[in-house]
Amino acid sequence: MQNLILHEYSPSGNCYKIRLTAAFIGQPIERREYDILKGETRTPQFLADVNANGRIPVLQIGDRFLPESNAACFYLAAGTPLVPGERFEQADMLRWMFFEQYNHEPNIATLRFWLAYVGADNLNDAQRGQIEAKKAGGDAALKLMDEHLAGRDYLVGGRLSLADIALYAYTHVAEEGGFDLALYPGVQAWLARVEAQPGYVAMAA
Amino acid sequence: MQNLILHEYSPSGNCYKIRLTAAFIGQPIERREYDILKGETRTPQFLADVNANGRIPVLQIGDRFLPESNAACFYLAAGTPLVPGERFEQADMLRWMFFEQYNHEPNIATLRFWLAYVGADNLNDAQRGQIEAKKAGGDAALKLMDEHLAGRDYLVGGRLSLADIALYAYTHVAEEGGFDLALYPGVQAWLARVEAQPGYVAMAA
Repeated sequence: MQNLILHEYSPSGNCYKIRLTAAFIGQPIERREYDILKGETRTPQFLADVNANGRIPVLQIGDRFLPESNAACFYLAAGTPLVPGERFEQADMLRWMFFEQYNHEPNIATLRFWLAYVGADNLNDAQRGQIEAKKAGGDAALKLMDEHLAGRDYLVGGRLSLADIALYAYTHVAEEGGFDLALYPGVQAWLARVEAQPGYVAMAA
Repeated sequence: MQNLILHEYSPSGNCYKIRLTAAFIGQPIERREYDILKGETRTPQFLADVNANGRIPVLQIGDRFLPESNAACFYLAAGTPLVPGERFEQADMLRWMFFEQYNHEPNIATLRFWLAYVGADNLNDAQRGQIEAKKAGGDAALKLMDEHLAGRDYLVGGRLSLADIALYAYTHVAEEGGFDLALYPGVQAWLARVEAQPGYVAMAA
C-alpha cells in the first residue's frame, strides 16, 4: 500500500476508529496531530491542502485525501476479514456504520465533546437547548445496540467487522458524555469482546 | 435477485434514493407506504417486524431487512457501474455518502421536513432554536459540493455513482427547506446532468 498519513486529533473517536482498524490488520500508519480546540483544522492551509470541510480525520493515501472516518476504515480494510464478502452482510455492515454517523455519533460523541472537552460552563444557549434531546437520542442508540447484541457476539455476521469498530469508538467512552453503560449489559459484554481481539489498541495508545 | 420490497414514505428523499438507484439499474421493486406524520413507523408491529429503529426506508430482501438508505443503495447497486470498482474511488464514493448523512441530510432534509411538512407554526422551541444553525450547515454543505463540482461532471470518478444519487435526493428539493440553489450554479448544472441520465425517475413518480 502507498504511504499512509492520518491527519487527526487523537482524542476523537472518529480518528481512533481508523487507528484501530489499522492495528487490527497490522497496517502501519503515520500520524499528524491537529488541535481542533485551537482551530487548527480551519486554517486556510488545512482547508486548501487536506480537507475543504475543515474536519479531521482525513486519511492521506500517497497524494490523495480521504475524509470521513468510516470511508477511511472501508478503504483500509478492503479485502480483509473486517469487511464481509457476502453481499447482504457487507451492506448490513454499512447499515451500522451509517447508523453510527446518523443516530449515535451526533448524540454520544457530541455530548462527550461538550461535557468532557468544551466544558458545560462554556456551552452556548443553542447547545444547552439540545442536551436533553441528545441524551435521549444517545440512549435510544445504545438500547438498539443492546437489543441487537442479545444473543449475538458481534453486530454483523458473527465476527468482528468495521461495524463493531465504528460503534466501539464512541460507545466505550460514552460515560464521558454522561451515559450509564451499566444500563446496557449486552453492549458492555460486546465492548469486552472487541477489546480481547488480537491486535486491539487502546484509544490513548 | 430475491423479491424486493421498499418500506417507505414516498416524499422522503432517503426513500427516493433507493427508488432512483433501482430505476437506474432497471431493478423492479415493490413499494409499501407508511405515513410518518401519523406515526406508522413507530407501531409495535413495525418496530418488531421491519425496523427496531422506527424509521423508513427499509429495503426488504426476501425475509431480511436492511435499514439505512445509503446501505440499501449499496446493496442494490453492488457490481453495477454505479459503484466504482477501484479501491480509492469506491471509498471516496462512500465518503460523499457519509458526508450526506452527517453534514447534508440533518440540515437540508430536516429544514425541508420542518418547513414544508410539519409547518413553521407547529415547531417547538428546541426546533426553532436550531433553524439558524441548520441553515448555515446546509449552506456550507451546498458550497462544498459547488466547489468540488467546479470542473467536474460528477462527484467521483467522472461518472454517475451512488454518491450523486445520495446527494441528489435532498439537494434537488433544498428550496423547500429555504435554500437558494441559484447561489450554487455548479450544483444546479450537476442536478441537470443527473436528471438527463437514462433511467432517471422523478421523486413524485
